[in-house]
Amino acid sequence: MAAGALQSVALIGVGLIGGSWVLALREAGLIGGTVTGCGRSPENLEVARQCGIIDHATTDPQRAVRGAELVVLAVPLGAVRGALEAIRDDLADDAIVTDVGSAKRCVVDDARLVLGDAAVRFVPGHPIAGNEKSGAAAAFPELFRNRRVILTPDADTDKAAAARVTALWESVGASVATMTAAHHDEVLAATSHLPHMLAYSLVDTLSRWSDRDEIFAYAAGGFRDFTRIAPSDPEMWRDICLANREALMEAMERYMADLQELREAVRTGDAERLEAVFSHAKATRDRFVAMLES
Amino acid sequence: MAAGALQSVALIGVGLIGGSWVLALREAGLIGGTVTGCGRSPENLEVARQCGIIDHATTDPQRAVRGAELVVLAVPLGAVRGALEAIRDDLADDAIVTDVGSAKRCVVDDARLVLGDAAVRFVPGHPIAGNEKSGAAAAFPELFRNRRVILTPDADTDKAAAARVTALWESVGASVATMTAAHHDEVLAATSHLPHMLAYSLVDTLSRWSDRDEIFAYAAGGFRDFTRIAPSDPEMWRDICLANREALMEAMERYMADLQELREAVRTGDAERLEAVFSHAKATRDRFVAMLES
Repeated sequence: MAAGALQSVALIGVGLIGGSWVLALREAGLIGGTVTGCGRSPENLEVARQCGIIDHATTDPQRAVRGAELVVLAVPLGAVRGALEAIRDDLADDAIVTDVGSAKRCVVDDARLVLGDAAVRFVPGHPIAGNEKSGAAAAFPELFRNRRVILTPDADTDKAAAARVTALWESVGASVATMTAAHHDEVLAATSHLPHMLAYSLVDTLSRWSDRDEIFAYAAGGFRDFTRIAPSDPEMWRDICLANREALMEAMERYMADLQELREAVRTGDAERLEAVFSHAKATRDRFVAMLES
Repeated sequence: MAAGALQSVALIGVGLIGGSWVLALREAGLIGGTVTGCGRSPENLEVARQCGIIDHATTDPQRAVRGAELVVLAVPLGAVRGALEAIRDDLADDAIVTDVGSAKRCVVDDARLVLGDAAVRFVPGHPIAGNEKSGAAAAFPELFRNRRVILTPDADTDKAAAARVTALWESVGASVATMTAAHHDEVLAATSHLPHMLAYSLVDTLSRWSDRDEIFAYAAGGFRDFTRIAPSDPEMWRDICLANREALMEAMERYMADLQELREAVRTGDAERLEAVFSHAKATRDRFVAMLES
């Protein structure tokens, strides 16, 4: 067991992200005591216990957080405020609370509103990892290796709490960056939330086509790659849209303006413009891949 | 050597698609004689010769087709008419001509216009295969295994010619479907051309973002999957847009209307509508994957 290992952890929401983090922290020897998992589904909690993610299970968030040094909120964004309200009065005075939500301004607002002074020990976080699976059974400890985690503490956030959460993420192989919640939301709207909207919308468009079955029969690799993210959890994505509405709308509007321009180039048969857009995109994508591999 | 193996083949345009088909036909024992490759780049032709795709190389299409039983046009769509004009007077009387272009109405029109009566032995084709690579060096004989090929002969097309091209595709592991050129263009606009436009446009949008480098640094798996098709050959995609303009514009307009609706749901915070769209897309995508695997 590593020095300073956690004696008591509460995991509120036991799914792919929270479950994988706990498994990874266990592998790193950073959990010396017990993990209590709290969730809505007793079946999923039992899976989590059998997978070695949690030691105890409860459907009562108040019981889960009592005495916990670290409280991890890993619930859909729409459930964050309710979870904070449920645990507020039972948090230990020195408990560090963190989350893994894909939007951060809404979570910061919820924490300020609900936790009041105790919000200084709330460290908002977002690991840029995951796949289209969900639930405790999908959790695995390598999920965060070589992935990025964004933390969005502000001037009021307790420095020791932020440092502790940073260290916990780094111990499982992630690299941690810090930025404002507003900037996080803009960056993620562009790089993750927008692409998901486009993929969902494409599947939607094609499913309304008159020859739907034939359309899907001939769907080529482009369609398959493009829509790989469409099976992601609908409830989670509904919450992301609502939570990051402003930045997502801005990103969608920019995209729609660019797509409208491309459509104009198609309509007018502007060969030069079309080739310029495609060449520029190819060069940019190639640079991106080179950056990922370097 | 199989009975009825081809004694003389002309390959006009020696790239991934044409090169792979010839390699696959050779493996299947269906080429008993020589293949003459014709292209603009002597370097690429030399690569094709070294890879065993072609036996002879020329930059003169007239020389390439003389005496050929089968002429495969595998040039960008914008170069089809010019290639047909170049070979018209040197085609053998019984030569079968086929192509591999991603749009078919334009090719059919070109063939009628240029070949006149000889257009009855032109069998328009489109293998639904390929990747983001190009050039003879990228060719490999397994490219068409378990892939679909669409042929778009019309009432005038010589039945024996169409049957021969069908057999040649089936011999390399592809399954062949026949439909009208107009229907092909609509189906491909939806399933391939539209997704490519969306991916190109996304890379374009993000590359104009003020914090471009940071945007790409945080680009998540969704972005990577979504834009995997963006590095495809810009010249080829320019030609596809011009050749399939009508059907592509229709598909883009449908998509933009659906995306606009989704943006409205985001703007108004319509949780129910958002979850319905995402759930429907997930179910549709899951069905599509199940269909591919069955």
